[in-house]
Amino acid sequence: MKKNVLIIGAGGVAKVAAHKCAQHNDILGDICIASRSQGKCELIIESVREKGSLKNEGGRLYSRQIDALDIPATSRLIEETGSQIVINLGTSFVNMSVLQACLATGAAYIDTAIHEEPDKICEQPPWYANYEWKYLDACQEKGLTAILGIGFDPGVVNAYCTYAVKHYFDSVDSIDIMDVNAGDHGKYFATNFDPEINFREFTGQVWTWIDRQWVAKPIHSEKQIYDFPTVGEQTIYLTGHDELHSLSKNIDANHIRFWMGFSDHYINCFTILKNIGLLSEQPVMTAEGLEVVPLKVVKACLPDPASLAPGYTGKTCIGNLVKGKKDGKDREIFIYNTCDHAECYQEVGSQGISYTAGVPPVAAAILIAQGLWDVQRMVNVEELDPDPLIKLLDTIGLPTQVQEK
Amino acid sequence: MKKNVLIIGAGGVAKVAAHKCAQHNDILGDICIASRSQGKCELIIESVREKGSLKNEGGRLYSRQIDALDIPATSRLIEETGSQIVINLGTSFVNMSVLQACLATGAAYIDTAIHEEPDKICEQPPWYANYEWKYLDACQEKGLTAILGIGFDPGVVNAYCTYAVKHYFDSVDSIDIMDVNAGDHGKYFATNFDPEINFREFTGQVWTWIDRQWVAKPIHSEKQIYDFPTVGEQTIYLTGHDELHSLSKNIDANHIRFWMGFSDHYINCFTILKNIGLLSEQPVMTAEGLEVVPLKVVKACLPDPASLAPGYTGKTCIGNLVKGKKDGKDREIFIYNTCDHAECYQEVGSQGISYTAGVPPVAAAILIAQGLWDVQRMVNVEELDPDPLIKLLDTIGLPTQVQEK
Repeated sequence: MKKNVLIIGAGGVAKVAAHKCAQHNDILGDICIASRSQGKCELIIESVREKGSLKNEGGRLYSRQIDALDIPATSRLIEETGSQIVINLGTSFVNMSVLQACLATGAAYIDTAIHEEPDKICEQPPWYANYEWKYLDACQEKGLTAILGIGFDPGVVNAYCTYAVKHYFDSVDSIDIMDVNAGDHGKYFATNFDPEINFREFTGQVWTWIDRQWVAKPIHSEKQIYDFPTVGEQTIYLTGHDELHSLSKNIDANHIRFWMGFSDHYINCFTILKNIGLLSEQPVMTAEGLEVVPLKVVKACLPDPASLAPGYTGKTCIGNLVKGKKDGKDREIFIYNTCDHAECYQEVGSQGISYTAGVPPVAAAILIAQGLWDVQRMVNVEELDPDPLIKLLDTIGLPTQVQEK
Repeated sequence: MKKNVLIIGAGGVAKVAAHKCAQHNDILGDICIASRSQGKCELIIESVREKGSLKNEGGRLYSRQIDALDIPATSRLIEETGSQIVINLGTSFVNMSVLQACLATGAAYIDTAIHEEPDKICEQPPWYANYEWKYLDACQEKGLTAILGIGFDPGVVNAYCTYAVKHYFDSVDSIDIMDVNAGDHGKYFATNFDPEINFREFTGQVWTWIDRQWVAKPIHSEKQIYDFPTVGEQTIYLTGHDELHSLSKNIDANHIRFWMGFSDHYINCFTILKNIGLLSEQPVMTAEGLEVVPLKVVKACLPDPASLAPGYTGKTCIGNLVKGKKDGKDREIFIYNTCDHAECYQEVGSQGISYTAGVPPVAAAILIAQGLWDVQRMVNVEELDPDPLIKLLDTIGLPTQVQEK
């Protein structure tokens, strides 16, 4: 039974996680929020206190300043705070250093996205093998619980795969993970999470799993219109995404693809920014001799994703279309969640994209604290029993629905 | 009779000017090219030698390094090089410092664009009054010849105004200056001269001269299709431009407007970049704490305008549609030049936009050297007799045509 949580990061997802941890601090114990900017941590704490999110009102909720790339400093912080669970919600560039700090201290490790190096994008599959999986043995030896990629996607959608296999199919032919945001933030152009990480997903090639092989395609080269429950018809594009890099190894299916919804306006803006070179992760030199990464400047110009929350309307829909056989017959289900931006804002002061990403790692922390997922090794989500997660999410804001086609 | 020319700047326009000066070095004497990057100056000199542009092959052609914002250093450079004529083709930010160096040394001053301050755009009219015209008295007292804005537009189009008044009209009602580039550089997106200066023209409001008053309008809010000679129908947009800020004072007309041609693709790219904030001249701070001006990063990502020249096809057309009365009757003429990108490249290794901007200041230098325009005061182009300019341009690459409507 582990307790006391250290949240690393102070963006929109960390804010949701802080609220959710607070709502369950009877199980999770002390909550420390640490990031490069302690001021941003304090703003989150103010929000948690304003909303009265702390279940155990006397529970400890406090902040620290940390550079999460500094492994010794992060290790000291874990020890100083007595944290037995670390929820890493910092930028994807810090995953490996936070994981090493957990290995040094024995604290359970949770993250929501694959590790990235600043100067590389859309890496060769399976991407996890380039970073996280190098520590599989170290985690095993140490008995360290490390749950990789437990946001919504990756994360809950990985559990949906296992859930479908466990309860609905004898064999699976194809899984199409589909993520659409039918919400409206009213801004000219904005990304719903860190623009830097967001754009890096789409500026290289699309790696997808077809006929049990990796296939590379150009971005936005394949699209379809899908009629989603609640949010209706949406245009979705074949894209690469974290979860394929582990599902391809762990799930027995012929095809596993990821689709994301984009409006024509998004595609237009993205295409122009990309073609001009403004989404590049490689530095350019200005005429004045300043070396700067264009993508970081685009990020600085775009709205802070957390600022989108007030007035955000509409819903997200994320789920898996699974096709296969059951009892000798064809079967097709869509297993999904819908999430309402305004309801999220009312509950935790954040929009739905942050909410869907921030609630699952807290669910994982609760399941570790309760011993249900304290597996003492490194796993991707589909390697765990999905049932406790699906059951818990039903009660803490992200209920699962299954549509039989 | 002045001689020896100092060219400040080493961009596309300076390259054309260097070639043209070389072609007339029997009149102009020594030619020194100076810029922040002496390497860029040397590349221009190599091009001049390759094309055999030096008329007097024994004439001096050399380079110096200079920070043109440094007035004492620029003054010393003018004296050291014995330059009696300075053609300022550096960024618009250096106009006032180069002018002051000319006042300190007595060298004639020529530029092709209005002075700009880095943190201001689309200034209150008349813009010249904010900078250059503050030195009208100083030039008068010193007997300094300073010719402002003698590129093509501003510049030749200002002379077209006077030329029309002198030869074609008793009274003028309206002048519409129209600038279109019907060429194709084959790049996804590029500007034809310094992107920074180019975009700064369009990111604020449009100042235009209507009913003898300044009127402010939003950018790209008025457009029309005009059927140009040679290049045919083109979509042009009402924009603000340098020349209106002096023509409004010096030319007796009810309306003076400036129109520029833009493709739908340009408008789309421009609108997205502008709305996102990437064309801002005001610095932003990246998440890493680096302060950077977005517009300078966009500039760094876009192709160097000089690099567009090889393979550039098509023509430019720039001219004045003038409406008024002659001998009691309505008259309407279009006085214009067309310029072919490929022919420019063949002659001087540059594209047509650089060519149309770079030839006129050399014409002005020749007219100063010949005593025809050595007026020993500060003037905008429309204050000078247009006939020697039009006649000279006919013979050095920018012939004028007049279409009677």
